[in-house]
Amino acid sequence: MDTADYGVTARLADYIVSTGGADLPEAVRHEAVRSFVNIVGCTVGGARHPNVLLADEALAPFAGQAQATLFGRGRRTDILHAALINCFASSIYSFDDTHAQAVVHPSGPVATAALALAELRPVAGHELLTAFALGVEMECRLCKAITIPPAKGSIAWVGTGITGGFGAVVASGKLLRLDATRMRHAIGIALSQAAGFRAVHGTNCTAMLPAHAAQTGLRAAMLAERGFSSSTVALEGRYGYLSVFCEEPDIEVLAGGLGERFELCSNTYKPYPCGIVIHPIIDACLKLRQDHAIPADRIAHVAIKASAGAMALCDRRTPRDEMEAHVSLYHWAAVAILRGTARMVDADTETAVRDPAVVAFRGRVDAAADQSLASDAAAVTLTMTDGTTLSCQIDHARGSSARPMTDAELDEKCLALAEPVIGMARARAITERCRNIAVLPDAGDVPRAAA
Amino acid sequence: MDTADYGVTARLADYIVSTGGADLPEAVRHEAVRSFVNIVGCTVGGARHPNVLLADEALAPFAGQAQATLFGRGRRTDILHAALINCFASSIYSFDDTHAQAVVHPSGPVATAALALAELRPVAGHELLTAFALGVEMECRLCKAITIPPAKGSIAWVGTGITGGFGAVVASGKLLRLDATRMRHAIGIALSQAAGFRAVHGTNCTAMLPAHAAQTGLRAAMLAERGFSSSTVALEGRYGYLSVFCEEPDIEVLAGGLGERFELCSNTYKPYPCGIVIHPIIDACLKLRQDHAIPADRIAHVAIKASAGAMALCDRRTPRDEMEAHVSLYHWAAVAILRGTARMVDADTETAVRDPAVVAFRGRVDAAADQSLASDAAAVTLTMTDGTTLSCQIDHARGSSARPMTDAELDEKCLALAEPVIGMARARAITERCRNIAVLPDAGDVPRAAA
Repeated sequence: MDTADYGVTARLADYIVSTGGADLPEAVRHEAVRSFVNIVGCTVGGARHPNVLLADEALAPFAGQAQATLFGRGRRTDILHAALINCFASSIYSFDDTHAQAVVHPSGPVATAALALAELRPVAGHELLTAFALGVEMECRLCKAITIPPAKGSIAWVGTGITGGFGAVVASGKLLRLDATRMRHAIGIALSQAAGFRAVHGTNCTAMLPAHAAQTGLRAAMLAERGFSSSTVALEGRYGYLSVFCEEPDIEVLAGGLGERFELCSNTYKPYPCGIVIHPIIDACLKLRQDHAIPADRIAHVAIKASAGAMALCDRRTPRDEMEAHVSLYHWAAVAILRGTARMVDADTETAVRDPAVVAFRGRVDAAADQSLASDAAAVTLTMTDGTTLSCQIDHARGSSARPMTDAELDEKCLALAEPVIGMARARAITERCRNIAVLPDAGDVPRAAA
Repeated sequence: MDTADYGVTARLADYIVSTGGADLPEAVRHEAVRSFVNIVGCTVGGARHPNVLLADEALAPFAGQAQATLFGRGRRTDILHAALINCFASSIYSFDDTHAQAVVHPSGPVATAALALAELRPVAGHELLTAFALGVEMECRLCKAITIPPAKGSIAWVGTGITGGFGAVVASGKLLRLDATRMRHAIGIALSQAAGFRAVHGTNCTAMLPAHAAQTGLRAAMLAERGFSSSTVALEGRYGYLSVFCEEPDIEVLAGGLGERFELCSNTYKPYPCGIVIHPIIDACLKLRQDHAIPADRIAHVAIKASAGAMALCDRRTPRDEMEAHVSLYHWAAVAILRGTARMVDADTETAVRDPAVVAFRGRVDAAADQSLASDAAAVTLTMTDGTTLSCQIDHARGSSARPMTDAELDEKCLALAEPVIGMARARAITERCRNIAVLPDAGDVPRAAA
C-alpha cells in the first residue's frame, strides 16, 4: 500500500520544519509583509459585515473560551471559532489577495489561523511572519500545481477551499514547532478535509470555504501536536490528495526549487472589492469615463471583451444580492461607468445592486470571451446614442503583477478598510503593527488592536 | 448560470421537509431502529478508546458550553464538539453499519448530529427516529448514486466522508423544522464542505472523516436556520457536488422513487469490528477452525480468494497499529484461525496486532482477488504441514443482507459494547431506549443514558 518513500509530503514537511526567517530572501519577507497588511485590512474591514455577524450569531452559542480576538468586536472566543469567523470576514468583500496565476486567495486562511493561535501561544512577530510566509508559499504552490497548465486540474474546485487548509496547517504547525513527522500527519489531517466546489460561488459559502479551511487547518495542527495520526504521504499516496483533485499535477511546481523559487512573490492585491478577473474591465470603464466624461444616458451600449476566466467565473448578468454582485462583471462595468469609482465596500455594494440606475444600465452591457486576452486584460467599447464609439483596452489591470499596488497604497487600503470598523486611531495602530510585524515583540498585538 | 429549475436538490428538500414518521412504512421504521441500536452501541463502545480520548483532549480546550453529552464520559460540551467526538467514537472500531451496495457507513454522522441537537432542542423519540431515518436514507441514496454502476464514481473518495455531511444536515435540518428553501441552503452549505480521500485509510482520519461530516452537517443546519445562504442547486448545479464527485451519477437512484424505494432497508450491521469486506474471510476461517479443530502449528499456508473490494481496501499485510489492523485482511484471518473469535474490541485489537503468534502466522497467509466473488463472499484453503488441504467457501458473510443480524443479536451487540464503558445497568437502559426510541417521550434521554 503506502510506500515509505521520501516523497513530496516528506520533502515539503522537512522544508517547512527546517526553514527559519533568515532563510527567506528579503524580497520574500517584504512581499509577505505586503500580503499581511492587505489581509489584516480585509479582515478588519469585513468584520462587521451583516453576513459575518449572522455567521457569528449562529455559531457563537457553540464557541468556547476567550482565547482570541474576534476582529472588529469586543468579544473574544476560542481560537477555532475566531479563525472561522475572522477568515470569513477577510473574504466577505472579495477584497483579499490573489496569486497571479493560480486562482487562489492564499492569505486569509493562513493569517487568521496563525493570528488566533498567536494569542493562545504567544510568539514574536518575526516568527509569525515566517509561519505566515511559509503557509502562503505552500498554499500557492499547491494550488498552482493542481490548476495551472501543464497541470490538468478542474475549474469546478474552489482553489482557496481545497488549498487553504494546507496553508493554514503549515503556518499553525510551524508556530506549534511540530517536528517533521507530526507536520506530515498534520498535513494529512488537513488535506483529508479539503473541500469546496464552485457551484456555491456568489453565495455566503464563497467566503465560508476559506473560513472552513482556516479552521480545519488550525485544528489539524492542534490534533497532530498531540500525536493524532493521518497518512504521512497524503499528497502523493495512492488515492491521495493529488489523485483526487488533479488529473495531472505539476510536481515540480509543488516541490521543486524549495527555498529558491517563491510563489509568494507572485501574490497580488486588489484595488476593487470583487472578483479579480473583473478588474481590467473596471479599469477600462473608469478610464473611458475619466477621459471622455460622457453622461450615462448618452451611452447606448457597452461591449466587453473579457478573458476566458472572467467569462467562466463572472458571467452573471443579474446579481440578486451583494454576494452575487461580487462575481458579476456586468454589475461592476455599470457601477464604474455610472459612479466613476469601484472602491465602495460595506452597505454600498448591497445598495448598488438594487440601484435602479445600475440595474437599468446593466441591461446595456454585453460581454464575450476573447481567448487572446490574459486574465488581467480586457477591452471595452462604448457605443453612443449617436452611433459613435469609444474604446479602451487594458493590458494589465491595476494591482496585477505588472502594475502592483505600492506599499503606500496597501497601507492606505488597510487604513481605509479598518477605519469605519475600529476608528482611525486603532486603524493606524493596526496598519503600523502589520507593516512592522517583523520587529513586533508579540504578534498577538495585531489582533488585539483589531478588537 | 445556475438555473432556477426544479431539480434534484429541490426535489429532495421538498421530500425531506414534507415527510413525517407516518409516511415511512413499518419495515423502514423497523430497520431505522435496528440501525439506531447498532450505532448507539458503537458510539458508547468507542467512547473511551484511547484515540477518542486523544481527540477530545486535543480539542476540548476550544469547546463550548455544556449542551450535549459526550458519550461514555461525565462531561458535557457544545453540540458541535459533541457531534465530532461522538461520531469519531462511533466509527473508531470500524464496527458501524454499512450499506449493502454503497461503501458508506451511514448512521454515525446522522445519529450523533441528531442526538447532540436533541439535547439542545428537545424532541420526542419518534421525531428523532424520522429525522434519523431520512438522514440515513438520503446519505445511502447519495453514496450509491455516485459510486455504484451504472454510476461512474471513484474508489479514491471515502464514501462516508463525502456523503455523511449530507445525512447529518438532512437529519439536523429536519429536527430544526427548516422550510424547503432553508433546507436547500443547508444542503448546499454541507455539501460544499464534503471531504475525504482514501489515502488516510488505516489512520485516525478514517474515523475522523465521518466525525467531521457529522459536525459540518449539523453546523450547516444551524447556519441555514439563521438564513445563511448557499447554492440552492448544490447537487446538480454547474460545477456542483455531483459534477466533482462523479463522472456519471445515477440520478434515478438519488432522487427516484422517493417514499417508495428505501435504501435504508439495505443497511447491514457488522458482527466483527473491522472492514466489512474482510468479514466473509473471517467467517471462512472461523468455520474451518470450528469444523476441524486444527492446531495452528499444523497449518503451513492459508490461501485466500477475496473479492475485488477486499483486495482494493484491505490488502495490508503488515499492520503497524490498531487502525491499520482494521483494514488488514491478513490480520483478521490470522486472528480468526489462532483465536477462534473475531469479536474483540478495545485493547484486544491493539494487543493482537503485536502478538508474536499473530504476527508470525500472518506471514503464512496469502490473498488474491477473485473477480467472481461478491463483496460478501470469500474462499479460504488451508494447506497442512503434511500437504493435505481443507477448504471453505462463504457465499454470504454473517451480517450481510442475505444473513442479517437479528434484532436480538443487535441488542446483544449494543449491550456488549456499552457494558464495559458505562456498566451493565446503563448499558441495559440505553439499549432499551434505543429499541423503543419511537415511543420515548424525550429523545435526549438516549445520550443522557450514555454519560
